[in-house]
Amino acid sequence: MEQLRDLKDDLDIVIPTIRNLDFLEMWRPFFQPYHLIIVQDGDPSNTIAVPDGFDHELYNRNDVNKVLGPKATCISFKDSTCRCFGFLVSKKKYIFTIDDDCFGKKLKVAKKPSGKQINALAQHIKGWSKNLLTPSTPFFFNALYDPFANGADFVHGYPFSLREGVPTAISQGLWLNIPDYDAPTQLVKPLERNTRFVDAVMTIPKGTLFPMCGMNLAFNRKVIGPTMYFGLMGDGQPLCRYVDMWAGWCAKVICDHLGLGIKTGLPYIWHSKASNPFVNLKKEYKGIYWQEDMIPFFQQIVLPKGCKTVQDCYIELANKVKEKVGPLDPYFEKLGDAMVTWIEAWNELNPPPQTAN
Amino acid sequence: MEQLRDLKDDLDIVIPTIRNLDFLEMWRPFFQPYHLIIVQDGDPSNTIAVPDGFDHELYNRNDVNKVLGPKATCISFKDSTCRCFGFLVSKKKYIFTIDDDCFGKKLKVAKKPSGKQINALAQHIKGWSKNLLTPSTPFFFNALYDPFANGADFVHGYPFSLREGVPTAISQGLWLNIPDYDAPTQLVKPLERNTRFVDAVMTIPKGTLFPMCGMNLAFNRKVIGPTMYFGLMGDGQPLCRYVDMWAGWCAKVICDHLGLGIKTGLPYIWHSKASNPFVNLKKEYKGIYWQEDMIPFFQQIVLPKGCKTVQDCYIELANKVKEKVGPLDPYFEKLGDAMVTWIEAWNELNPPPQTAN
Repeated sequence: MEQLRDLKDDLDIVIPTIRNLDFLEMWRPFFQPYHLIIVQDGDPSNTIAVPDGFDHELYNRNDVNKVLGPKATCISFKDSTCRCFGFLVSKKKYIFTIDDDCFGKKLKVAKKPSGKQINALAQHIKGWSKNLLTPSTPFFFNALYDPFANGADFVHGYPFSLREGVPTAISQGLWLNIPDYDAPTQLVKPLERNTRFVDAVMTIPKGTLFPMCGMNLAFNRKVIGPTMYFGLMGDGQPLCRYVDMWAGWCAKVICDHLGLGIKTGLPYIWHSKASNPFVNLKKEYKGIYWQEDMIPFFQQIVLPKGCKTVQDCYIELANKVKEKVGPLDPYFEKLGDAMVTWIEAWNELNPPPQTAN
Repeated sequence: MEQLRDLKDDLDIVIPTIRNLDFLEMWRPFFQPYHLIIVQDGDPSNTIAVPDGFDHELYNRNDVNKVLGPKATCISFKDSTCRCFGFLVSKKKYIFTIDDDCFGKKLKVAKKPSGKQINALAQHIKGWSKNLLTPSTPFFFNALYDPFANGADFVHGYPFSLREGVPTAISQGLWLNIPDYDAPTQLVKPLERNTRFVDAVMTIPKGTLFPMCGMNLAFNRKVIGPTMYFGLMGDGQPLCRYVDMWAGWCAKVICDHLGLGIKTGLPYIWHSKASNPFVNLKKEYKGIYWQEDMIPFFQQIVLPKGCKTVQDCYIELANKVKEKVGPLDPYFEKLGDAMVTWIEAWNELNPPPQTAN
């Protein structure tokens, strides 16, 4: 398996935020060794304070406009969509991104049943589970979950030809306490808390979509970065609160096409603060309606064999969004265009390495 | 949701065995209320002792021949394949089946991390998780696993139109201690034990195969019974140790076609005694070789829309086994024929209810 040189050289932590990052204190032992890219959401004239000792760069809307020029139109604000700007400007191999409401008032780091604090960052990449550094197994279900975890393996009847697996592109971690529910479920179950610590990591099988959550997410930026676009959502857009899910559906379809894997499960973070379900309902209602068309679109799409790179696939997907989902609402035409602009911005900021002639 | 009348009237426990069932003592508090169907493997002249107080019927090879006549050829022995005879003669709605090596010398019932003994039978059907009584969700992955478990639900981004789910046909429970490894893995990792208690139940997504294990398995016999044929394997056959997996592949393809679900995960049993890896290697080597063809066969098969019943689907599958896998070895012709015989036996012993004219 691939070995890390030094994770510090290979990793950026991306945090979208609208508030002072005093809460980073809680994560200091885990995050301080690494570089932080902070993307300030909302009004750029506000000043965001970052505690001393964190190696970081901070971007606000003005910076985004300066860096991207006319292509800045693809970066939305006020729905944590702006975090994808951090993915764009990073030069590292791995990204770990976390929500700032995982730093709520009742702040704490999630704990294992043993009482030990969970270093989410390390578990995504280093640590015993090494989610991103061990292969994924999307072609066949393994009853003991991740066969590459300590103390586990492929069970009897798992074909030997599939045991090498495929490279892992994305690792989605989960959340204890406040579950990631939509507004209707929040309203119906206001007191429900996720208390179940499920000690497993698993590959999401090929051909199966999942609702990706950006709250606690790591990915191999060099492999899958161009799909991690959180869409034209939030401020001034009809679609909100589908930012990470949109990116997840695009990424899953492309990973399935290119033979890459997505894992979900450990590590957990502690999600402190539920967002307001009444506000969410207003933000979500078009998405709740449209997802009944968006999901069949992603379930049925077949990318042409000629699409060999993530960028090829993503442009093809953007075109299909305009063609197939566009008739639902003119918004999807704009979203498809923004997806193309995003890839142009990606290629501009991340030119392919020059080969010597 | 469907309510149970009285589980006693609806459930049989099927146990294939070659030894005295003194070990049932361990399960007495959990199993005694129910009816046991014991299928004696191997030499019918041996006498199997069953502890007092267990309501049971016991069948040996002679009984199988008597009940099935010429169709008895489809029931193999000496590889726990004979357990499917118990499925055939049962008249109940639910079956729970368990291996007799889950009663090994170091006998114990698996425990939760809290120390409480796990009533595997109840968790498959009754209990908090109600695997068989709550729907499955094969069309979309839910990050919090079974949305019908206590304290869980569908996460944000799960389409509302898919939340009703589909009826659950099969519930596969897992095993602590000795993992269900093939002989090569047993040989390479002789000391590996499964100590990870994963507190989750999940639906295996549509289109994804899994290696079903008969060690701790429950199913709705009225819904999926005719697929639970453990094959022409064991005594005198070239294919051994693929009995439950064969049934699982057939069942999964048919469940996917008919819109039924299969769950895996909780409850755990304690698996005490590893089988001999050298003996297993001899038994398995053809299967290890053939599975590289059998699995693509099951992955690629498409059942015709006209197949509306489990029996229709199974006969179609039997014919396809002969046609597509037959060229691999004449054994698969015989296996396909045995699958047809099994359905004939099933229909004979389980005639459709007479409707009043």
